[in-house]
Amino acid sequence: MKRYEKFAEEIAELIRTGVLAPNEKVPSVRHASQTYGISPSTVFQAYYLLEDRGLIQARARSGYFVREHAKRSLKEPDISSHEMASTDVDVSELVFSVLDSLRDPHTVHFGSAFPGPDLFPLDRLAKSMSQALKALPSHSFIADQSAGNPDLRRQLALRYMISGVMLPSDELVITNGAMEALNLCLQAVTQPGDLVAIESPSFYACLQALERLQLKAVEIPVHPREGIDLDALSESMNRLPIKACWLMSSLQNPIGASMSEDKKEALYHLCVRHQIPLIEDDVFAELHFGQNPPKPIKSYDKEGLVMHCSSFSKSLAPGYRVGWVAGGRFSEWISRLKLMNTISPSIPAQAAIADYLQHGGYDRHLRRLRYTLETQQHAMLVAAEKHFPAGTRVTRPKGGYLLWFEFPEKVDSLQLFHSARAQGISLAPGPIFSASHRFRNCARLNYGQPWGPSSEDAMALLGKMLCSF
Amino acid sequence: MKRYEKFAEEIAELIRTGVLAPNEKVPSVRHASQTYGISPSTVFQAYYLLEDRGLIQARARSGYFVREHAKRSLKEPDISSHEMASTDVDVSELVFSVLDSLRDPHTVHFGSAFPGPDLFPLDRLAKSMSQALKALPSHSFIADQSAGNPDLRRQLALRYMISGVMLPSDELVITNGAMEALNLCLQAVTQPGDLVAIESPSFYACLQALERLQLKAVEIPVHPREGIDLDALSESMNRLPIKACWLMSSLQNPIGASMSEDKKEALYHLCVRHQIPLIEDDVFAELHFGQNPPKPIKSYDKEGLVMHCSSFSKSLAPGYRVGWVAGGRFSEWISRLKLMNTISPSIPAQAAIADYLQHGGYDRHLRRLRYTLETQQHAMLVAAEKHFPAGTRVTRPKGGYLLWFEFPEKVDSLQLFHSARAQGISLAPGPIFSASHRFRNCARLNYGQPWGPSSEDAMALLGKMLCSF
Repeated sequence: MKRYEKFAEEIAELIRTGVLAPNEKVPSVRHASQTYGISPSTVFQAYYLLEDRGLIQARARSGYFVREHAKRSLKEPDISSHEMASTDVDVSELVFSVLDSLRDPHTVHFGSAFPGPDLFPLDRLAKSMSQALKALPSHSFIADQSAGNPDLRRQLALRYMISGVMLPSDELVITNGAMEALNLCLQAVTQPGDLVAIESPSFYACLQALERLQLKAVEIPVHPREGIDLDALSESMNRLPIKACWLMSSLQNPIGASMSEDKKEALYHLCVRHQIPLIEDDVFAELHFGQNPPKPIKSYDKEGLVMHCSSFSKSLAPGYRVGWVAGGRFSEWISRLKLMNTISPSIPAQAAIADYLQHGGYDRHLRRLRYTLETQQHAMLVAAEKHFPAGTRVTRPKGGYLLWFEFPEKVDSLQLFHSARAQGISLAPGPIFSASHRFRNCARLNYGQPWGPSSEDAMALLGKMLCSF
Repeated sequence: MKRYEKFAEEIAELIRTGVLAPNEKVPSVRHASQTYGISPSTVFQAYYLLEDRGLIQARARSGYFVREHAKRSLKEPDISSHEMASTDVDVSELVFSVLDSLRDPHTVHFGSAFPGPDLFPLDRLAKSMSQALKALPSHSFIADQSAGNPDLRRQLALRYMISGVMLPSDELVITNGAMEALNLCLQAVTQPGDLVAIESPSFYACLQALERLQLKAVEIPVHPREGIDLDALSESMNRLPIKACWLMSSLQNPIGASMSEDKKEALYHLCVRHQIPLIEDDVFAELHFGQNPPKPIKSYDKEGLVMHCSSFSKSLAPGYRVGWVAGGRFSEWISRLKLMNTISPSIPAQAAIADYLQHGGYDRHLRRLRYTLETQQHAMLVAAEKHFPAGTRVTRPKGGYLLWFEFPEKVDSLQLFHSARAQGISLAPGPIFSASHRFRNCARLNYGQPWGPSSEDAMALLGKMLCSF
């Protein structure tokens, strides 16, 4: 990281944490240069960068000020209400029609669940693949199918250790992406008919997994910034025979909420008190905008009650299909379920990622990726502020590539989905994120695709459609 | 294929099909040379090859004769009896202890389900991987996750076409090996509690899949050469509410049976009459020893009732984890289940195999692989004949790398499994192939591992253990 990038990152962190509030003046170039012992041109470069990312703006003859983002006109969505009930799940049809809409390469992919593939070091990964395949002894192609590539396991355990989680190395199960990990965890701790506490809104694949395993959803509201409503969760745990809890503690999909560390710890103790296994989906953790990675709930786990699932699909290697779970006390059973489900994720893919983690510069790539995503979040917020109707609310997640919009009451996002699709724009309508078909006036938009004139046009067109309701 | 190899293959085919019977004299060198218009040295080379493969043997001053194999002393196992009942399945614990025994690299892996990894063109595949990753556009890493690599789909459809099966291209679902394909097929056509007709003995993963999905097994006996007992199957279909049938029509695991074409067609019509979906596990089809590949039951399928599952794990690319299913009328649902289960098999692995199929020389590799396996089958049969006790019976499959032994009644293969394991020899004991824990005096041995002195020693040691019962 260059000096000006580092300085920009420090200022950005002050803005994110509220030390520098909206409309506050940032240190003048001269002042910053003197105070921090860096050249005025370094300060300028840093401020240009921050301006580019939408964090500060220049005011004529007054210097730079912290930008209000789009906060002024677009408010944060409300938390949804909590109903004490369990629901049979049947969102699959709707989800598949959204996924279908993503096959057309000419579509603007606001509905996608992935960032644009050009954000990833695919060439460097190919080099790692080639080196790994040269080095891999032939017996590994068969022997590594049961426990996974040993180098990859080591690298993963190391990353856990650095982030403060000490894992016994046999707790890790390497899977076909986080999707398989999450499915196996759910199977490991439930039987058909069981109740599972999930977020509302929640990741649609979670709803599909429940549907497929004939489980019932107990939907707990999620606050757009603070995450799941602990009181509601606690009440549900007291009153209903909940067998598992599945949630995202950081950068929740679709709403972007990240729980505070205190809240994470409290949630862990709540699960312990009820002895309810927790499936923690943490696939966006590496895409945090701040300097410090969010701490997983897993880091508080002393009883092996938390199954921490993640993957490289969204941070490094889309399509390689390598994920994992640190499965706590359920690890052995999860590992067996994996053998029965698919035997093993691809051995070459595992070996390539292991080589990349060791030699490819993962952390450098992640810094660049986070910077791009933060810049593109800004671009989408500005476009939304410009084109979307008054009364639109929007989240401002501190990472990832997904925004959650709450449109005025009269908007029907399913109708919007169909009209937009006809115009070559995909989006993810609110109801696919709810077992009880809520969020009819909401939608999730992906800003992780390359941002350009066609994205601007698509936002303008969506704005027109929204205004016509 | 060189001229002498071709000639050897022609003679081998005559032996396999019984045109040349055991103890019959093969054409003299002079006769063959004149009749077929090839040089005497070519005939000699061909006969050496056949001798090496254990198909013919020289008798002093009399020329070459068709070998009786080990048929003289080791008979074929009997077909098991049929009981009209359904059984809850619980073999998993036992299966996992067998799988565990395979982790030790110092073990002689007679218990393995895979051939030795050195039989595969891993270096050539690595080259294909490198070329494929260079050519693959970045958007494919995300777009190909829903339907699979288009080149791979094309190559697969082409191979089906050549073998006489015309598939609509959207019938293919690319999966994480055949294991995922089989699991998804079973899920697509059953509900917990349903009855499924399976073979006895049957592939243990089939039993595990039933166990995991809480399905009940209706076990149908399998004849060691002719395959599943159609009368017994028909009777069960008449009397019980069977919801699906899962079987291997060629080179059945563990017993090696291949059904005749007439029988395959009759079985298809039986399924049609009862409208029972058929899951056809055909993973060994490419490993046939004869010249003509076995025809799948799928080739008779006019109604889309057959789900034909296979993979490259046993014929080309172990550990790549690429398989598929031609899912008939269930394809769309299977494809959706795949998206919900793992999203997609690894994109690089798919692209590498697609490149190899086009440029790598798959058919040449397969010819070599079949030749090696046939030679090693002979070696194991000879060793068994030498070391195993009188009364031992054994199958003689026309392909693959698995032999099924039926030992004298008093032998307990579970006890044998534990004693052998203590001596560094793995094997697959009979009871893991049966929902009702039959086949206690049987075992499956893998001859696809490199054959050498340690294999001979292991066979001798097993023989000693067997004689001590």
